[in-house]
Amino acid sequence: MTARFAYTIKSRDGCARAGVFHTPHGDLLTPLFAPVGTQATVKSLTPAQLEELNAGLILANTYHLYLRPGDEIIAQIGGLHTFMHWNRPILTDSGGFQVFSLADSCKIDPDGVTFKSHIDGSIHRITPEKSIAIQENLGADIIMAFDECGSPYDLDKNTAALERTHAWAERCVKAKTRSDQALFGIIQGGVYPELRQRSAEYLSSLDLPGYAIGGLSVGETKKETLSMLELMDRNLPEEKPRYLMGVGSPEDLIMGVQRGIDIFDCVLPTRLARHHAAITRSGRLNITNTRYHSEKSPIDESCSCYTCRNFSSAYIRHLVLAKEMLGATLLTIHNLSVLLSLVNDIRQAIIDGRFDRFASDFLESWENIP
Amino acid sequence: MTARFAYTIKSRDGCARAGVFHTPHGDLLTPLFAPVGTQATVKSLTPAQLEELNAGLILANTYHLYLRPGDEIIAQIGGLHTFMHWNRPILTDSGGFQVFSLADSCKIDPDGVTFKSHIDGSIHRITPEKSIAIQENLGADIIMAFDECGSPYDLDKNTAALERTHAWAERCVKAKTRSDQALFGIIQGGVYPELRQRSAEYLSSLDLPGYAIGGLSVGETKKETLSMLELMDRNLPEEKPRYLMGVGSPEDLIMGVQRGIDIFDCVLPTRLARHHAAITRSGRLNITNTRYHSEKSPIDESCSCYTCRNFSSAYIRHLVLAKEMLGATLLTIHNLSVLLSLVNDIRQAIIDGRFDRFASDFLESWENIP
Repeated sequence: MTARFAYTIKSRDGCARAGVFHTPHGDLLTPLFAPVGTQATVKSLTPAQLEELNAGLILANTYHLYLRPGDEIIAQIGGLHTFMHWNRPILTDSGGFQVFSLADSCKIDPDGVTFKSHIDGSIHRITPEKSIAIQENLGADIIMAFDECGSPYDLDKNTAALERTHAWAERCVKAKTRSDQALFGIIQGGVYPELRQRSAEYLSSLDLPGYAIGGLSVGETKKETLSMLELMDRNLPEEKPRYLMGVGSPEDLIMGVQRGIDIFDCVLPTRLARHHAAITRSGRLNITNTRYHSEKSPIDESCSCYTCRNFSSAYIRHLVLAKEMLGATLLTIHNLSVLLSLVNDIRQAIIDGRFDRFASDFLESWENIP
Repeated sequence: MTARFAYTIKSRDGCARAGVFHTPHGDLLTPLFAPVGTQATVKSLTPAQLEELNAGLILANTYHLYLRPGDEIIAQIGGLHTFMHWNRPILTDSGGFQVFSLADSCKIDPDGVTFKSHIDGSIHRITPEKSIAIQENLGADIIMAFDECGSPYDLDKNTAALERTHAWAERCVKAKTRSDQALFGIIQGGVYPELRQRSAEYLSSLDLPGYAIGGLSVGETKKETLSMLELMDRNLPEEKPRYLMGVGSPEDLIMGVQRGIDIFDCVLPTRLARHHAAITRSGRLNITNTRYHSEKSPIDESCSCYTCRNFSSAYIRHLVLAKEMLGATLLTIHNLSVLLSLVNDIRQAIIDGRFDRFASDFLESWENIP
C-alpha cells in the first residue's frame, strides 16, 4: 500500500520541501494547495474550469456528503470521482471537525460521537469504523483518521481528546479495507508542545503514508501556530507528506512551507470570492469599491487567469452588484488561480534554492487587509 | 448599411426559411435561438461556456443596463462586446417592454416615457432618441426601435400604442448615427389583424434591415398567436429577417418557424434551469424528483452537452438540493443546448426539405408539462 502512495522529496531548501506524492489518480506536486469542494463541488466552478486552473488535489467533506446525498448513493454512482466528474486526486476529511463545529448538538463517548444533523435535526452516530466505511464509500485517494479537535487552550480537554484521537486512529487503521486509499493520521494537542510531540510520536509509530496537523488556525495566536509547526517539522518523519488542515491564506502558505508543510487546504479563496473579495499578491481588494466603477483593467494586471485575461474590474463589479452568479464564478477562478500559481512559484523557488528570498520578498509586499 | 446586414435565404420549405444574416460580429444562421443575457451575462455561464454551446446571437436588455451599470460606463469600457467578453453578435431590445412591465411606475406621453427605477426608485425618462443613444453606447449588432406594447385585448389602447410606436420608429431611424448597427422595427397591434397588418405595412415602408414581432405571448391564446404569425408571414417583406420577441419553448420554436419566423429569444431555458427544471425533447422534468435520487444516467441519454456527457441525474439533483450554484450552471448548459441543437436540427430539416415531417414528429413526442 505504501508504495502506491510513495512520497519522493525532489528538493529541499531550508525546511521547505518540493516533492511528488503518488496516488491512484495521478502524481501530486508539493507544496500544493487543495481547493475545497465541501458538497462534492468546488463552489461555482465546473470540473472543466478546475482542470483549466490546473488544480491537483481537491478536498471534499465526509460529514456533509454522509448527510447529503449519502455516501451509499455516491458509492452506487461509482464513487466521488465519478459522481463529481473529477479524475484527479481527492482527499476526504474524517467528519470529526464538522461534527464538532457544525452539528446542532453532539455527544462524545469513548466509542464515537452522536450528533444531530444541521440539515434536518435527524440523529446520527459516527465512530472511527463508520468514518472509514463512509470514506471507503466515497473512495477518495487520501482519507483521514477520525479525530477530536479540542479548543486550543484547555490542557485537560486536549489531553483527553488526544487519547481518544490516538485510540481512534488505531481503530481506523484496523477498519480500513481498501488498498487504493492512503489513510493519514491527524496530530492534535492544542498549543501544548508536550501533547503535540506525544501525538507526533504515537502516530508516527503507526507508519501511516502521511500526517495531517489538525487543531491549528482555530483561535490560537499566529506565534503559537508557527511554533507548533516548527515542533512538528522536527518530530514528524521526513519522508512522509505533511498536511496542514484548513490553512491557506497566501502568507500562511509561505510560513507553512518554511516550516516543512507540503499540503494545504482552505475555503478562503472560494469563500472570499462569494463575498466580493479578490486576492492578489499584494493583498485583498473588495471589487464593489466605487474605485472600480469604470475600471478597464482586470483585477490584477499580472495575473494570467481566465478572469484577468478577459474581464475588466468594472464588469466584475457590475456582476456582483447586480447579484449575477457569474461574479462569484469569475472571482473564484481568479482567487484559486492566485493560490495555485503561488504554490507553483514556491515549488520552483525551492527547486532553485531561492525560497528564503522568495518568501521574504512575498511577505514584504503582502498587505493583509483582514 | 443594409449590405452590411444582408439577409440571404438559402432554403425554403413551406413557409419555413433557412438563411444567413450578416452582422459585423459574424454570420448568423437562421432559424436561430438567442439566449438572454439581461444584465450583460447569460445567467450562470461564462462566455467560454456559451461559445462551447455554439450560441450565435445573445440578447441583452437596454432597460437593465441603462440603470445598472449605466450605458456610459459600458461605452467607456469599449461597448457591450468588450464589457461581457462576447465577440459574436449581440441584440439589444429598446427598453420599451421592460419600462412598462418592470418599472415601479411609468407615465407615457407622446414624446416618451417617464418611470421609476425598480432598483432604487430614481426617476428616469426614455424617449425614442434616448433609447437609440443608449443602444449606441451599448453597441450591439442589432438594435430595436422604441415601442409601446399594449395589453392584447384592448382595441383603443392598441390603436393609440400603435400610432405612438410608428411615430417613435421614425424618430429612432432619424436619431440613429452608427452604421454598424441594424435597427429593427417592432410590429405591434395586439390580437387585431387590421392593426397588425397596418403596422407591418407602415414599418415595411421604412425599409429596415429586419422586423420584430412584439406583443405576442403576453396573455393571448395560442390560436391567436399563430393566426397573427400567419398574417405577418403574408405581410412582412420576404427578404428581411423576422424576429419573434420573447418566445422560445421548443414547441413555440417549431410553430414559429412553420410560420416564417427566423429569430427567437426567450428566458425560458435559463430561468427553468434556476428552478430545477430540465428541458428534453420529450418534455420537462424536475430534477429534484425522488426518482433521480440515485439515477446514474444523465438528464437525457441522447443529449451530447457537457452536462449530459459527464454527470448523472443523481449528481445534479444533489447539487440542486444542496443549493450549490453548479446545479443551475449544469442545468443551464443542458437547457440551452437543447434549444440550440433544436434550431440546428430545424435548419437542417428545412435544407433537406423535410421540415413538415420533422415538425409533426417533434410535436407528437413533445408532452408539455406546464
